[in-house]
Amino acid sequence: MRETWVVGAASNRYGKMTETAREAATRVALEAIRDAGLEPKQIGHTFVANCFGLAEHQAHVGPLINNGLGIPEVPSVTLESACSSSSAALHEAFVHVAGGFADAALVVGAERLGHLDTLAATSYFAIAADYAFETKNGATFPGLYATLASAYRDVYKTTPEMLGSIAIKNHANAARNPHAHFQKEISMETYLASPLIASPLRLYDCCPFSDGAAALVVAAKEAMPRPTNEPLVVRASARAGAVTDMQDRPDLLGLPSTRAAAAAAFRQARMTPKEIDFLEVHDCFTIAEVLALEDLGFFPKGTAAKESADGVTARDGRLPVNPSGGLKAKGHPVSATGAGQVVEVFEQVNGRAPGREVPRSGTALTHNVGATGGSCSVHIFSRR
Amino acid sequence: MRETWVVGAASNRYGKMTETAREAATRVALEAIRDAGLEPKQIGHTFVANCFGLAEHQAHVGPLINNGLGIPEVPSVTLESACSSSSAALHEAFVHVAGGFADAALVVGAERLGHLDTLAATSYFAIAADYAFETKNGATFPGLYATLASAYRDVYKTTPEMLGSIAIKNHANAARNPHAHFQKEISMETYLASPLIASPLRLYDCCPFSDGAAALVVAAKEAMPRPTNEPLVVRASARAGAVTDMQDRPDLLGLPSTRAAAAAAFRQARMTPKEIDFLEVHDCFTIAEVLALEDLGFFPKGTAAKESADGVTARDGRLPVNPSGGLKAKGHPVSATGAGQVVEVFEQVNGRAPGREVPRSGTALTHNVGATGGSCSVHIFSRR
Repeated sequence: MRETWVVGAASNRYGKMTETAREAATRVALEAIRDAGLEPKQIGHTFVANCFGLAEHQAHVGPLINNGLGIPEVPSVTLESACSSSSAALHEAFVHVAGGFADAALVVGAERLGHLDTLAATSYFAIAADYAFETKNGATFPGLYATLASAYRDVYKTTPEMLGSIAIKNHANAARNPHAHFQKEISMETYLASPLIASPLRLYDCCPFSDGAAALVVAAKEAMPRPTNEPLVVRASARAGAVTDMQDRPDLLGLPSTRAAAAAAFRQARMTPKEIDFLEVHDCFTIAEVLALEDLGFFPKGTAAKESADGVTARDGRLPVNPSGGLKAKGHPVSATGAGQVVEVFEQVNGRAPGREVPRSGTALTHNVGATGGSCSVHIFSRR
Repeated sequence: MRETWVVGAASNRYGKMTETAREAATRVALEAIRDAGLEPKQIGHTFVANCFGLAEHQAHVGPLINNGLGIPEVPSVTLESACSSSSAALHEAFVHVAGGFADAALVVGAERLGHLDTLAATSYFAIAADYAFETKNGATFPGLYATLASAYRDVYKTTPEMLGSIAIKNHANAARNPHAHFQKEISMETYLASPLIASPLRLYDCCPFSDGAAALVVAAKEAMPRPTNEPLVVRASARAGAVTDMQDRPDLLGLPSTRAAAAAAFRQARMTPKEIDFLEVHDCFTIAEVLALEDLGFFPKGTAAKESADGVTARDGRLPVNPSGGLKAKGHPVSATGAGQVVEVFEQVNGRAPGREVPRSGTALTHNVGATGGSCSVHIFSRR
């Protein structure tokens, strides 16, 4: 297996796009390729994520992006794994490059739903749940994650302030991230005064619908004798599934797919959680960040919410979590989210995160979940 | 790179499904796994194609299928490359197995649109075209392929009877295929009397909207010491893109992505077209079979329609093409189509195509196109 690097990265500002997803994807893809010091013709394969193309009447986006890049002959494919689609695309790029099938590959995720009304956008999101057993019976993602939050609270006695501390931290980070949807801090007062969406989750526990696009260039070390940036060495690229429906799980105190993907990733990297300097985790709701930190092995079960309230996961804490602002405040443009997490790692490592630098950036982990954990991707990166 | 085999295959009957795509996919996947003499737990990765899940309110189908198979922890991803989605899925499975990332992988494609009215189904198909430059301006796939057919006819003087001979041949083959949507022969009289859909294409030049599901198990030779079936050795798995919009192409007398994917595939297999015994090609319209046979290098430009009329591509001809009945008559359940082509090769090689056997089945090629050729996959198989 060849040593595989992330050598270029780009993102637009998450929020509302006036461009279509294909336009935004093409533009950030070209930025990422140039950032890597490459030409489009050096890309051997394009891996796209764009779950909700139908909202723009457009599937088969890969060839359109490659056309825009001037490389129509290059193969492309679109990958979907719900909210973890672009980390699934990164995994395929990793497999192609590490396995010697391509020297350089493009990963680009883009999503646009902001031109739809909230009900239509919610309907798109809902197709990632199990229609027969969840959606059709009225379950939505806020409701499903609220169920996880209730179960956790009942066992581990979390307070609203503990979940609120996560929202406040992620907003504080996003306020320093030019890519973020919400570039404003919030107070505990604001958090506690925000309306209940699905008890115990309040408005500020929930990530927004965001439009956005993010791109990465993945290349073999041996194909990049003089990288223009400090590359991210891909130490692990692991994915796992899990029982999709919550009613069929043995407990609701974590996401089994996170545990499985984390175990595979740490095994692949031959590392332990103690060796990771900072994290980008899938905080579609604040409770999801709590579960992620425990399932990934960074905190014992039942402790992560309190640790967060104590500032351990703040940007200057012992274990910075979501220095980008996370899905919660940087935003959640579904198909861009996973690639966007890696953009944050790349910017931290390359000194391109002024005002939000983490103290140590020798190693990082990204964690991206599909739906309520039917799928999960974990990547581990280090400096050379 | 490890020698990689297709070791099991299954398909339902194309046409109208009463099952949902996820149900059909799960069922045929289990049949394919059992056909390979394996247990679901031996599957290392699941690659799904299901372009139009939204028509059933369902994305993120991979985890649902794996749940149904009793292997929830196994990673899965859905791949989309328009009508070539499940051959793109096969390519990813090949890369994972050949590259040593999985010993055995499941490929399953399923599609269901038959519960929608024709206008709604057409709208789903249309999202594979370029919305900004084609769909929005009224172009549909029958119209776009009719443009190709007109251009070809004007240069090479094809007659209606030449295109008709392809429809008649493929219906004759489908009549002997229990998986086929249309299990009936048609006459030249019927063909010529059928209404024009988009001149010069008549009703019987066009493939139907079909529901359907097809599955393959791909495994490393070294992981299959005693295969239960005669395996297909994957000699080549190649994909390519092309300029998407026809107005931007230098000519309309073929599909550039077919030429590029074929060149890559023959190079990879170290073979020439002369060494291929039979083909399954992408005949979404009869003209597409003509273009495919020329672009793949089996006939000189401008000759394939006449060769077809002369019976060269009949099941007992010199080069049998689409012994399954092709998209034209076996049917075109978009995301099952590419995998279904390989099911036909597998059944031919394993003596499971009674009544429609080809004379020689030592080698075969499958060809699967996305949209009007924005993408294309070519696979070459041989017996051990």
